[in-house]
Amino acid sequence: MLEINETHDINLNSWVSSANEHKDFPIQNLPFAIFRRKNTEQGWRGGVAIGDKILDLALISAANIFTGEAQQAAMAAAQPTLNDLMDLGKQSNSALRRALSKALTNGSALASHLHSMLVDQKDAEYNVPCTVGDFTDFYTSIYHATAVGKLFRPDNPLLPNYKWIPIGYHGRSSSIGVSGQKFPRPTGQIKSPNRTIPEFSPCKRLDYELEMGLFIGKGTKLGEVIHIDNAEDHLFGICLLNDWSARDLQAWEYQPLGPFLAKNFATTISPWIVTTEALAPFRHAFAHPEGDPEPLPYLNSTKNSASGGFNITLDCFLETQKMREEKTPMAALSRSNFKHSYWTAAQMISHHSSNGCAMQAGDLLGTGTQSGPEEQEAGSLLELSKGGKAAITLPNGETRTFLEDGDTVIMRASCAKKGAKTIGFGEVSGTILPSLPQPTSSQ
Amino acid sequence: MLEINETHDINLNSWVSSANEHKDFPIQNLPFAIFRRKNTEQGWRGGVAIGDKILDLALISAANIFTGEAQQAAMAAAQPTLNDLMDLGKQSNSALRRALSKALTNGSALASHLHSMLVDQKDAEYNVPCTVGDFTDFYTSIYHATAVGKLFRPDNPLLPNYKWIPIGYHGRSSSIGVSGQKFPRPTGQIKSPNRTIPEFSPCKRLDYELEMGLFIGKGTKLGEVIHIDNAEDHLFGICLLNDWSARDLQAWEYQPLGPFLAKNFATTISPWIVTTEALAPFRHAFAHPEGDPEPLPYLNSTKNSASGGFNITLDCFLETQKMREEKTPMAALSRSNFKHSYWTAAQMISHHSSNGCAMQAGDLLGTGTQSGPEEQEAGSLLELSKGGKAAITLPNGETRTFLEDGDTVIMRASCAKKGAKTIGFGEVSGTILPSLPQPTSSQ
Repeated sequence: MLEINETHDINLNSWVSSANEHKDFPIQNLPFAIFRRKNTEQGWRGGVAIGDKILDLALISAANIFTGEAQQAAMAAAQPTLNDLMDLGKQSNSALRRALSKALTNGSALASHLHSMLVDQKDAEYNVPCTVGDFTDFYTSIYHATAVGKLFRPDNPLLPNYKWIPIGYHGRSSSIGVSGQKFPRPTGQIKSPNRTIPEFSPCKRLDYELEMGLFIGKGTKLGEVIHIDNAEDHLFGICLLNDWSARDLQAWEYQPLGPFLAKNFATTISPWIVTTEALAPFRHAFAHPEGDPEPLPYLNSTKNSASGGFNITLDCFLETQKMREEKTPMAALSRSNFKHSYWTAAQMISHHSSNGCAMQAGDLLGTGTQSGPEEQEAGSLLELSKGGKAAITLPNGETRTFLEDGDTVIMRASCAKKGAKTIGFGEVSGTILPSLPQPTSSQ
Repeated sequence: MLEINETHDINLNSWVSSANEHKDFPIQNLPFAIFRRKNTEQGWRGGVAIGDKILDLALISAANIFTGEAQQAAMAAAQPTLNDLMDLGKQSNSALRRALSKALTNGSALASHLHSMLVDQKDAEYNVPCTVGDFTDFYTSIYHATAVGKLFRPDNPLLPNYKWIPIGYHGRSSSIGVSGQKFPRPTGQIKSPNRTIPEFSPCKRLDYELEMGLFIGKGTKLGEVIHIDNAEDHLFGICLLNDWSARDLQAWEYQPLGPFLAKNFATTISPWIVTTEALAPFRHAFAHPEGDPEPLPYLNSTKNSASGGFNITLDCFLETQKMREEKTPMAALSRSNFKHSYWTAAQMISHHSSNGCAMQAGDLLGTGTQSGPEEQEAGSLLELSKGGKAAITLPNGETRTFLEDGDTVIMRASCAKKGAKTIGFGEVSGTILPSLPQPTSSQ
């Protein structure tokens, strides 16, 4: 059931020597991205991370060294987006993974041939890995939902539907960017408690949200419902996701239809997508806390309970303008874990399709902020600063309630376990620019 | 300011004789769609409606009979989606409109050449006219917001933000279909007032929503804000939109993040997109009712107040299975008008971009249900049946609180005014199929 195969052998080593002690990208990981060499006219193409290198899948495809499904998948991965690869589905994606693993293993006869297809990661730039037809954001940390609920609705923090429904809403695809995204502080309507009418102003309570992103692989047709035990057949892989949030815009606009401009000015994802096969050793049993209701049958299965969760450590850091200027290290803000999620990836996917909603290859599902049970495991400044009431102090003496211009938020994720090779997700970083002047009429 | 040009002359007549007394598509309209001949291997292409015909823009483009911007736009309109045409922007789109108007006018030297490029509408099928990168749904009828608010929150129907913010939320692109869409009744979590826990069941309160859809033309970059007076430079045109809604799913899931599965199983749009130039004679002054606040400056301008609204009559009909079997006419459900909207198209667009959210050619903005001030002008069954408490009786004796399997909902829109030629939007229709059996595991 855990789908652990030969690509996970802890003793596997690669002829790409930087891979063997790499904290993120040993040969057991092999995540996918869309990249190109910096400062060239080269087109975007798929790549797979191995140590501090990228194996160029456009060159792999052109060299025609794989056969059958693996070659078909390599051809799809050579495109400027990963949508075609994603839509091929698990079996084909797995064939490519196995072929890549073999080819990159110490002693592979292909080593000398593939050597020329490696690009240094430091010479590469990345793009959003696919056309995201639809972006959905869930709300699966009960700790986050409770903490935020207390701030927005002190009398009624956790709504009665929370323990029954993987709560989610639709987000904005057009503002999704890849790690390195820089964007102006959003402007919008803010209604301060001490004013009777709203003002239009740059956001004063700008925040990040520490999330994971699930990329849909093989799509479904309108009306097609995905059984929970088949849900991961439609999961291509997982990335890091920062769901930037303008808390003051959100508080004023969000009722009754949910967050809109408070969330759609930028969403930043990590370039590397880690497959569920790479994550197989880090699966985690899923159960709701004792006393909470069992999920309804369409969200419940033996398989999901046995291993529907993932044990992924999530870290969030802040690098301020001052830290960059003074060359002091960035500050750790919090550490959490995806295993605390109240709903699993399979439950999110099967719930999403349960009404017949069509899922398309490349659709992105954010998990919602992954705050843990402890206060210091909170995945947003809103929580860490208790709604902006208690500034946090950074190691260099700066303080923050919310983000300031020039702040860079960095998120990382990794999986470690005795008897398995440690793997990581790389990072997602994003930077706040000053807000722009308001436009004037050209008419 | 009203942009009325020679393409609107009421005395213009076309050599396509069916156009001259056509209720929807006289030569003054010239709406765009994506179509192909039925039962052929022909690819999708752009077309423009003229009477009961479609002028094939792929043939227009290939014939190279226009020049300059008009020819460039015709080439874009020859593609399988209208995204390229939309992204060219108003000036180019207007050049194509003027060239088409001249070519289709009585006495045009091009008449004999163009005659072979006409397709009977009855021989055509339509597609969603563009790739919809993002779908946003607004909530701009204060009458709808108040009526629905009363049902969901009896003590608090209209929230304090309503008169300040064009409330909107993100919808789902993957389930947008064109007129004729048939989809299974959605299944989902329903929490009946008389039960302590939710059940998973086919929707029992399935509804339509009578809306208009605004298609974005020229796009913007992340961080680019659109001034209200330039907003319509980014509006390609307007269609009809049915935002199907599962009211029982909605009531249980929508807090705190808004509607999700209650709305994303299907959204149906009319094939024809009517341009703002065609709508120029039907512009309407915009003002909030006396005593309501003036919009904040970024949503307020002399131009918007003078003519930001559109006087578009909206009609909604129901055809049941029984009516089809007994060949009795469909039933009129309600008539409303887009002029009642609390926010204009320009306000929706400028608000949407006010935080720097990138807009892309082909993005679709639903207006929200366009209920009018009178009870019989309601744009949903939820309102007409008073939350399902008062069944409406149809002319053939059938009754409805909500939609039943086999029901087809048809919406139409038209603009009429003394001194101007009447134009219409064609129609959008959609049909409810029985819900599907639940899936089983393949594992």
